[in-house]
Amino acid sequence: MRKILLKLSFCGTGYCGYQVQNNGITVQKCVQDAAEKIFGERPPVTGCSRTDSGVHAREFYCTLELSEKANVIPTDKIYAAMNSALPNDISVHSAEEKDGDFHPRYSVVYKEYEYLIWNNRIRDPFSEKLAFHYPKKLDIEAMNEAAQKFVGKHDFAGFMSSGSDVADTVREIKYFTVSGEAGGFVRFNVAADGFLYNMVRILSGTLIAVSEGKLTADSVPSLIESKDRSKAGATLPPHGLYLNKVVY
Amino acid sequence: MRKILLKLSFCGTGYCGYQVQNNGITVQKCVQDAAEKIFGERPPVTGCSRTDSGVHAREFYCTLELSEKANVIPTDKIYAAMNSALPNDISVHSAEEKDGDFHPRYSVVYKEYEYLIWNNRIRDPFSEKLAFHYPKKLDIEAMNEAAQKFVGKHDFAGFMSSGSDVADTVREIKYFTVSGEAGGFVRFNVAADGFLYNMVRILSGTLIAVSEGKLTADSVPSLIESKDRSKAGATLPPHGLYLNKVVY
Repeated sequence: MRKILLKLSFCGTGYCGYQVQNNGITVQKCVQDAAEKIFGERPPVTGCSRTDSGVHAREFYCTLELSEKANVIPTDKIYAAMNSALPNDISVHSAEEKDGDFHPRYSVVYKEYEYLIWNNRIRDPFSEKLAFHYPKKLDIEAMNEAAQKFVGKHDFAGFMSSGSDVADTVREIKYFTVSGEAGGFVRFNVAADGFLYNMVRILSGTLIAVSEGKLTADSVPSLIESKDRSKAGATLPPHGLYLNKVVY
Repeated sequence: MRKILLKLSFCGTGYCGYQVQNNGITVQKCVQDAAEKIFGERPPVTGCSRTDSGVHAREFYCTLELSEKANVIPTDKIYAAMNSALPNDISVHSAEEKDGDFHPRYSVVYKEYEYLIWNNRIRDPFSEKLAFHYPKKLDIEAMNEAAQKFVGKHDFAGFMSSGSDVADTVREIKYFTVSGEAGGFVRFNVAADGFLYNMVRILSGTLIAVSEGKLTADSVPSLIESKDRSKAGATLPPHGLYLNKVVY
């Protein structure tokens, strides 16, 4: 068995998320289709994360498991072969041979997500599906102050949408920064050892609530403590969210 | 008669250019439809330029000519009313009342276009329709040197696609710059008092030919002199082109 780790980026607009499902085209299905074309067999494809419908990835990893019978393509030629077989909104940046015990999901040390906001009273015609349009002036300083209160190891049970079956809701946020300027693009960048279902979109909605004066930085510790989803901010829409970095 | 100048931006991907035509949806038609909704009459709409199918605009101007019978909307409220009636890939930034002798096309002093290139061996999934993908490493310095040879007043007859009926092909290029870095986005910015049909796309293709060593900066004056379309570079595709700035 040959295990190949692919580094991808994709625009999530046209996809029902990463993971194969019955009711729509997914990134995983496209990768599997492309791999079948070039390797002459349909390999198992395992991703580093299950991104939701409409969510983007600037950096995403998945493995292909090839049998002895697969067409032999030198590792440094795989990215170009895959790109020729994939749709234009998915790119393969590189390929690397990995040991059998490497797992694209469980071997992750930490991941960084970005939530991208177009913060202007006028919508941006070029980022309709690539950034969340928020027209009122954001308070960058207040949001950044609040973001720092989330850093560290906490039980984030209140920052998870229902429909998830995880038992352990403790996660460690390594960093959480707010950058950019009101009037242009504003970015929330958050890195952690793992994320709960919709966690980044809820954390982002909570920072918006801080900007709107509905919550304060000082109230964040008790908000986390409450483990009460209804006390946090709204779940922002998927099209502003990017998986930005994956560290193994 | 009330003449209103609108400042727009639009993503050209979904449009058959600016100007109303029979075989597809145009930006002009959308502006007219939106104006009809909010003013209760369908006003004449005149644009600053006829952008081609797939071409974008970061700054574009058009006038609405309203009769006495049109709904009265204060000038500073028009942008918001128009935005609520327009599709999301067209934005109105502002509205301004103008004199009867102002003309959105003939009153232009100069315009600036940008040609945007994603210059990386790997395509960018997020700019498929927003930048031209050129995979080979561009020679920024050589292109910038060549661009300077185009600046000034010249007969650009060799830099025009057929299908245009203009008699005078002399135009004055005010500036022409190449910026960015190989590996990322590269921008050609060119300003002139007017442009011939496909002129920016042909100038851009000519700079690419310089980067490829097929032409040199020193050959530009004789290339212009020849007035021979076949000696210039290729016409690059429309989706990398932006009307960037319009100065009255």
